[in-house]
Amino acid sequence: MAKNIKFDEKGLVPAIVQDADSGEVLMLAYMNEEALRRTLSSGEAWFYSRSRKKLWHKGETSGNRIKVRSIRKDCDSDTILISGEPTGPVCHTGNKTCFFEELTEQDIEAGPQEEA
Amino acid sequence: MAKNIKFDEKGLVPAIVQDADSGEVLMLAYMNEEALRRTLSSGEAWFYSRSRKKLWHKGETSGNRIKVRSIRKDCDSDTILISGEPTGPVCHTGNKTCFFEELTEQDIEAGPQEEA
Repeated sequence: MAKNIKFDEKGLVPAIVQDADSGEVLMLAYMNEEALRRTLSSGEAWFYSRSRKKLWHKGETSGNRIKVRSIRKDCDSDTILISGEPTGPVCHTGNKTCFFEELTEQDIEAGPQEEA
Repeated sequence: MAKNIKFDEKGLVPAIVQDADSGEVLMLAYMNEEALRRTLSSGEAWFYSRSRKKLWHKGETSGNRIKVRSIRKDCDSDTILISGEPTGPVCHTGNKTCFFEELTEQDIEAGPQEEA
């Protein structure tokens, strides 16, 4: 088992990917223990796809892999930060980063709030 | 309600905080809709504390707030990236960033895996 990593009730931990050279934050995905194990042993990023419910070697379809330069965990051991080198655009939209849309106050509507 | 943001089944969305000047990834926390609303309207980072089950104005105790320079969402609208200026160390340990511990293969033990 993974020592000192706190996986959530679904056995997952969020993993941020940052470009090791530019510092740009590229994406966030989730790892289960096996994805973390394969990432550490292979030097390429593996995740667990919550929608497809399976291990996912980043780039297995697109060819755009992430070569891992370092992996860190946060002070609570419940988030991972990968510093890596993407071999192509990380986002499925073709963008370099998944974070390309700015939020403004207009994205929060005024008026009565709905109860979830 | 927040347009176009996909909160999870607990009404939360992960929010990465990045230093707007250095590019360093500082922390990851969670926002509910009200935290996002307050962040957008106040220009300072608000989160939802999962352990304390309440809204949390970052720095309300430590004084170390995060002044927001921009907020972006990812292509799936289920992660937020805050680019901000911390007024002091972000981490409760006194570190500038919460991501100060490197993971290695030794953090994954070999041998029989435990079933969760």
